[in-house]
Amino acid sequence: MFNSFGNILRVTTFGESHGVAIGGVIDGVPAGVEVDLEAIQNELNRRRPGQSNIVTQRKEPDQVEFLSGIFEGITTGASIGFIIRNTNQKSKDYNHNTNVYRPSHADYTYDKKYGIRDHRGGGRTSARETANWVVAGALAKQLINHISINAYTSSVGDIFLVKPYQELDFSKIENNIVRCPDETVAEEMISKIKEIRKEGDTIGGTITCVVKNLPVGIGEPIFNKLHAALGKAMLSINAVKGFEFGSGFCGAKMKGSEHNDIFNPDGTTKTNLSGGIQGGVSNGMDVYFRVAFKPVATIMQNQPTIDSAGTSTEIQGKGRHDPCVVPRAVPIVEALTALVLADFWLLNQTRRK
Amino acid sequence: MFNSFGNILRVTTFGESHGVAIGGVIDGVPAGVEVDLEAIQNELNRRRPGQSNIVTQRKEPDQVEFLSGIFEGITTGASIGFIIRNTNQKSKDYNHNTNVYRPSHADYTYDKKYGIRDHRGGGRTSARETANWVVAGALAKQLINHISINAYTSSVGDIFLVKPYQELDFSKIENNIVRCPDETVAEEMISKIKEIRKEGDTIGGTITCVVKNLPVGIGEPIFNKLHAALGKAMLSINAVKGFEFGSGFCGAKMKGSEHNDIFNPDGTTKTNLSGGIQGGVSNGMDVYFRVAFKPVATIMQNQPTIDSAGTSTEIQGKGRHDPCVVPRAVPIVEALTALVLADFWLLNQTRRK
Amino acid sequence: MFNSFGNILRVTTFGESHGVAIGGVIDGVPAGVEVDLEAIQNELNRRRPGQSNIVTQRKEPDQVEFLSGIFEGITTGASIGFIIRNTNQKSKDYNHNTNVYRPSHADYTYDKKYGIRDHRGGGRTSARETANWVVAGALAKQLINHISINAYTSSVGDIFLVKPYQELDFSKIENNIVRCPDETVAEEMISKIKEIRKEGDTIGGTITCVVKNLPVGIGEPIFNKLHAALGKAMLSINAVKGFEFGSGFCGAKMKGSEHNDIFNPDGTTKTNLSGGIQGGVSNGMDVYFRVAFKPVATIMQNQPTIDSAGTSTEIQGKGRHDPCVVPRAVPIVEALTALVLADFWLLNQTRRK
Amino acid sequence: MFNSFGNILRVTTFGESHGVAIGGVIDGVPAGVEVDLEAIQNELNRRRPGQSNIVTQRKEPDQVEFLSGIFEGITTGASIGFIIRNTNQKSKDYNHNTNVYRPSHADYTYDKKYGIRDHRGGGRTSARETANWVVAGALAKQLINHISINAYTSSVGDIFLVKPYQELDFSKIENNIVRCPDETVAEEMISKIKEIRKEGDTIGGTITCVVKNLPVGIGEPIFNKLHAALGKAMLSINAVKGFEFGSGFCGAKMKGSEHNDIFNPDGTTKTNLSGGIQGGVSNGMDVYFRVAFKPVATIMQNQPTIDSAGTSTEIQGKGRHDPCVVPRAVPIVEALTALVLADFWLLNQTRRK
Repeated sequence: MFNSFGNILRVTTFGESHGVAIGGVIDGVPAGVEVDLEAIQNELNRRRPGQSNIVTQRKEPDQVEFLSGIFEGITTGASIGFIIRNTNQKSKDYNHNTNVYRPSHADYTYDKKYGIRDHRGGGRTSARETANWVVAGALAKQLINHISINAYTSSVGDIFLVKPYQELDFSKIENNIVRCPDETVAEEMISKIKEIRKEGDTIGGTITCVVKNLPVGIGEPIFNKLHAALGKAMLSINAVKGFEFGSGFCGAKMKGSEHNDIFNPDGTTKTNLSGGIQGGVSNGMDVYFRVAFKPVATIMQNQPTIDSAGTSTEIQGKGRHDPCVVPRAVPIVEALTALVLADFWLLNQTRRK
Repeated sequence: MFNSFGNILRVTTFGESHGVAIGGVIDGVPAGVEVDLEAIQNELNRRRPGQSNIVTQRKEPDQVEFLSGIFEGITTGASIGFIIRNTNQKSKDYNHNTNVYRPSHADYTYDKKYGIRDHRGGGRTSARETANWVVAGALAKQLINHISINAYTSSVGDIFLVKPYQELDFSKIENNIVRCPDETVAEEMISKIKEIRKEGDTIGGTITCVVKNLPVGIGEPIFNKLHAALGKAMLSINAVKGFEFGSGFCGAKMKGSEHNDIFNPDGTTKTNLSGGIQGGVSNGMDVYFRVAFKPVATIMQNQPTIDSAGTSTEIQGKGRHDPCVVPRAVPIVEALTALVLADFWLLNQTRRK
Repeated sequence: MFNSFGNILRVTTFGESHGVAIGGVIDGVPAGVEVDLEAIQNELNRRRPGQSNIVTQRKEPDQVEFLSGIFEGITTGASIGFIIRNTNQKSKDYNHNTNVYRPSHADYTYDKKYGIRDHRGGGRTSARETANWVVAGALAKQLINHISINAYTSSVGDIFLVKPYQELDFSKIENNIVRCPDETVAEEMISKIKEIRKEGDTIGGTITCVVKNLPVGIGEPIFNKLHAALGKAMLSINAVKGFEFGSGFCGAKMKGSEHNDIFNPDGTTKTNLSGGIQGGVSNGMDVYFRVAFKPVATIMQNQPTIDSAGTSTEIQGKGRHDPCVVPRAVPIVEALTALVLADFWLLNQTRRK
Repeated sequence: MFNSFGNILRVTTFGESHGVAIGGVIDGVPAGVEVDLEAIQNELNRRRPGQSNIVTQRKEPDQVEFLSGIFEGITTGASIGFIIRNTNQKSKDYNHNTNVYRPSHADYTYDKKYGIRDHRGGGRTSARETANWVVAGALAKQLINHISINAYTSSVGDIFLVKPYQELDFSKIENNIVRCPDETVAEEMISKIKEIRKEGDTIGGTITCVVKNLPVGIGEPIFNKLHAALGKAMLSINAVKGFEFGSGFCGAKMKGSEHNDIFNPDGTTKTNLSGGIQGGVSNGMDVYFRVAFKPVATIMQNQPTIDSAGTSTEIQGKGRHDPCVVPRAVPIVEALTALVLADFWLLNQTRRK
C-alpha cells in the first residue's frame, strides 16, 4: 500500500541506499510486450551517479537484473521482479552521522515516526529508490511506445530556459550534461552548477515534461484525474516542492476569455493553456507540466544541528553528493510519467462496453 | 476505484449536477466519533451557491441527509451513506448545449472517452461533486479536531495577499465574502471580481492553506508522502492548475545553504521552508501549501466552438456561473486537507509494534 | 476498503436494517450498457421478504432508486448511486433486545470491536445489506449478458437434490418457492421448512451455482484466482459456512488418475472435476460451486443468553424471521457471482498488449 | 493488484519455478519487530521439497535472502524485499512438454489467456510460489506471536483423523512426516501415500487449522469478514477445492436450536459451531477451519492429451513430484493464516476513536 504505485500497472518497491540491493515488482504488464533490456539499462545510465562532473561522483554500476515475468524476451503477464545490487555502500561515509539529524533531511521525521532509523545514507528515504522507478518506467515506455515523453531541465537557480517548448528540439536534450535542449542556456546552467559546487553549496531547479501523441480519453474522472496522478507522481520524487500543468500558476492570474482554448473543427484547440487535459481526461493536445526541485539538503559546509538526544552539535560537509539534482532527475520525471500513462492507458481499455 | 479517495478513511461518491441527487459513502470512520451535524451543514453552507453577490446566483439549499453509520449521534464504525438532493436542476439552462462542446470544459473529452455524454450542466464533471467532499471533509475534521486547518484566498487575478501567513488572523477569514483575512486586500479582490463579472468574464486566483498542530510522523514514505497526497487531492478540484508547498517554486531558485531549516534543540526548526514535511512525513511545524485555480471556463460572452459533428458554431454566454471560483473553493480545500490528514492519522496507528 | 467489493467494477455499500435507507455506489461500469430497470427490480423481488409462506413475513417493497450514472437508459461511465428506502423499520420488534446479545449473532462481537452497537435488528450486520448486492449484481448481469448464471437450492437440512446439475432444467428454478429445479425434491424441501417453522426452529441448506458460456481466460493468477474470488464473495453472505467448487471436498478423497480432466482436441475436457477453472483461470467449461448455509440464528424459541453487563438472561423468540435462508439467498448467490465475473471480465481486457 | 495479498500488511510476489529466483516485497510491517531469521528459515524448511520420502525428491535449499527493511535485526517500517534463488532448475525435465497441455494443469488456460506461456514447470503457476508466502507468513507470525496457529493433516484420501481438534496434542504435528498429530492415523496416511506413489498416482487430502488466543474484534464487516479473508487465502493455494469453517457443510444440515452457541457469563460460548467468528468478527473462541486439496495433477502414468495445435498426443509420467501435496501444504496454510490475522490485527488499530 505504502510502497506501491499505480492501479492496473502497479510497481511495488523496496530497498535502502546502503543495503544489499534495491528492487521491486512490476505487476500488471500485459503479456506480449517485447522487452528491450538495453533500452532499460540506458535509462538507468541516464540516472546513474558519476555520469558527469556536475553530479555526485559516487560510482554505482546500477545494473538491473530481471528475475521473472519475461520469457524469451517477451512479457508473459506474470509479475516482473527485479533487483539492482548496491555495490558502493560506503557506510563509513555516514557513520559519523549515526545519531545526528541532518537539516532538511528526513532523519528526524523517520526517527520520530518509527522509533528506529536506518541511518546509513538516509536508508529508505534515499533518492537511490528512484532507480527502481526508472526501471519500471523504462518498461512502461515500451508498453506505450506510440506515445512520446520528453523531459528537460528548464531552470537552474535563476537561469531559466524561457523559450516555450514548441521552439525546442528535444533531440538535443542528451547533447549536454545538464539536459537542457538549448545549448546556450545549457552552458550557463553548467557554469552555475560548477560554481555552486565550488562553494560547497547546492542549487534548485525545474524540469519541464512534454507528452506528445497521447490519445484522447486517457485519465479517469473525479479522484484519478490525469493531472492529479501526474502531480502525485512528481511530488513523490525527492526534493520536489511544486507541480503545475498547462497554464499553471500563471493561469491563476488570467481571465476566462483569455484562458479558454477555442476548438478547431477537428477537435484540436487553437491554444493549449489547458495543458492537454480537460476534466482530468486527455484531449489529444500535448500534455505538459513543470516540476520544482529544491536545492539538495546535503551541502559541503558545516551546519549547526542536533542529535537524537536534542544536544546541539555540528554536522560536517562530507561525502559525495549532487550540487544540483535536476540533471539526474530528468529520466526520473520521464519514468514516472510513463508509469502513469501506461496505467491509465490500460484502465481505459475497460471504460466502454 | 475511480470515484474513491483515501486508504483507511475512504470516500466514494456519485452524482451529476442535474440528476436526482449527489452523495457518497464514507468508509473507515472509527466508531465513537460524536457527530456535530450542524457543523457539517455549516461547511456546506460555506460552499453553497448564492451565498453572496460575487458567486453564482443559483439557489441550492444543499441539505445533507445522512442515511447510515451514525446512531444516537455517534459513529458506529459502519459505513456512512449520505445524499444531497438536487433541487434546482434547471436542465433547460443547458438544453441549448446538447451537442455543443464548451471551450475548456470536459464535454469533448468525456464524449470521446465514453462515447456518450450527460450534457446537463457538465454531468459528472460538474463542480457540484465537491459538495460531497465538503460533507466528508467536515466529518473528518471532527475526527481530528486536535488539528487546525485554515484556508484562505491569497490572490485573485493579479491582486495578491503578500503578507506571510504568520502575520494573518485566521479568525477574520469568514469576515468577508471573498474569504481573505486581510480586509484591505479583500476589498480589492471583491471589487475585481465584481468588475470581471460585469464584463461577463471570469478570473483565476490562488488559495493558501495552513495546517497547525499536526503531530510529528504523519505521512507515509515513497508513494504516499504527505505532500504528494495533499497535492493529488488539490489537483482533483475542478479548475486547479498547480500546487506547491513550503518554499514551492521559489525554492527551485534557492541555494541549499539558504533553504535548509536549522533545528532548535526541541526538534522545531528556525525556518520552515520545508513546509512542515520532510521525506513525506510531518515534522511538527506548520504545513502550508498554495493552490492555483484557473478562471472558470463558462463566461457570459459568446465564443466560437464546435459541436459533436465537428461543425463550427457559437456558444452563447447564458446560465448562472461563478465569476471567480476561489471564494467557494476555500472550504473545499479545507475539506480535502482534512480527509488526507484523517486518513494518514489513522494509518499511522499501524506503523509501530 | 471495508465496505467495498471488486477491483475494476467496485461496489461500495452502506445501510442498516432499521435506518433510513440502504444503498451504495457502483463504480467502474463501462459506458454504453443499456439498463433494464425492470430486470433489476425483478431480481430484488426474488430476494424480497414476504414473497412466500416459507420466508419471513416482513413486508418491504424493496424499491431501488437510481440516483446517477444512467442517462436516458444508458450507463455513462460515471459512478452509479442508488438507495433502497427502509419502509418497515419496526424497531420496536427489537427494543427488548437493546442490551442483550443474541446467541450466534454478531451482537457481542460488534459491541466488543466498536464499543458501540446499533442494536436495531442487527444494524449493519443485518442480511438486509444483501439487497444492495442484488441491485449491483443485477446490473452486472446486464453487462455480461452473454454469460448465464443459475443458482438453485440443492439441499435443505438432510434433503438433498442428488441429481447432478447436468440433468436439471434451470428454467424450472422459479417454478416453486424453494427454488429447487426438481419438483419432487422441492416439495419435500418445502414441507421440511414448514415443519421446522412450526417448531419455531430454523434449518440450514446449500445452494449450487452453475455458470455457462464463460469465455476461456477469466480469472487472475496467484491472489485473484477466479475460484478464490468466488469463494470470498460467497463467504461474505450472512450464514455461509463453506464453499467448494468442482469436485470440492469429494476431490480430496480421489486419486490423480481419477480426478484429471482429459482434453478433447477442441480444448474442452471429457470430465469437469476442475469445475471449469485451472490455475485460477476459466477453461471454457462450466464453472460450478456449492455454498453451505447454517440455520438462521434467530429462532422462535426462548434461549438463555447474557446481556452487555454479563448478566444471564433469556431471549424470547419474537419477530418475523426466515425459517430457512436458502430460498431467498439464491438471487444473492447469483448477484455476487455476476459481480465477480463482470469485474474479472473487465480486468481481462487489460491482460494482453 | 493481481500478485498482492493483504490490506495494511501487503505481500507482493514474483517468480517462476524455473526462473532465476522467486521473491517478493512485504509492505506494512510495523517498525520495531525483532526478526528471528532462523525461525523464518525453519518454516521454509517445513515446506521444502525433499524433506522426506513421501514428498517430491527435488532438492532445493530454499534459502531466503532479505534485502531491505530490517536493520540490526529489527524491522524499520520500510518495505521488506526478499528473494529465494532457484538452484535446481532442471528445465530439461520439462522440455518435452513445450507445446503440450498437461491435464488439469493451468497450461491451457494460461496459454489462452496470455497468448504466451512459460512452459518450464508451470512457470508462474507452479506451487513454488508458495515458498514466498511461507517467508511472509513466518514474519507475520512474529508480529502476532501472542496468537497461536496450528495446522495439521486431517485426511489423506479416505483416511480421516476423526478426533475433534480439542483432543489432539499439536506439539506432535511435527513428529511425523505427514504432519498428523495422531500417530496411529499418521502411520496409515504415510502407508497410503507410499502405496499411491508406487502406483505412479497421487492422492488428495484435507488440512485443518486451529487459531487460539485470537482477541475479540478481529475481522471487518461486510466484504472483509475474517472467514471470507481466510477462505480466499486458502482457495489461493494450488490444488485447493474447498473451504469450511466452524460447523461448515455439516452445519447446513442442522437446526438453529442445535447450532446456536449459547453464551457463558464471561462472553465465551458453551459450544463453538460458529468457529470463533460471528458476523465476520472474532469472538475470542478458537477459530478453526478445514481445507480440501485435490490430488496433484502430475502423475507418473502416461495420459492422453493435446498440444497447442489441438493435436492429440500422449504425456509421459516423468519428473519429480509430490504423491500428496498435503504434508508440505501444512506450513503454507499456517503462513496464509498468519498473514490474514496480522493484517486484520493491524486494521483493528484504526477502528475506534
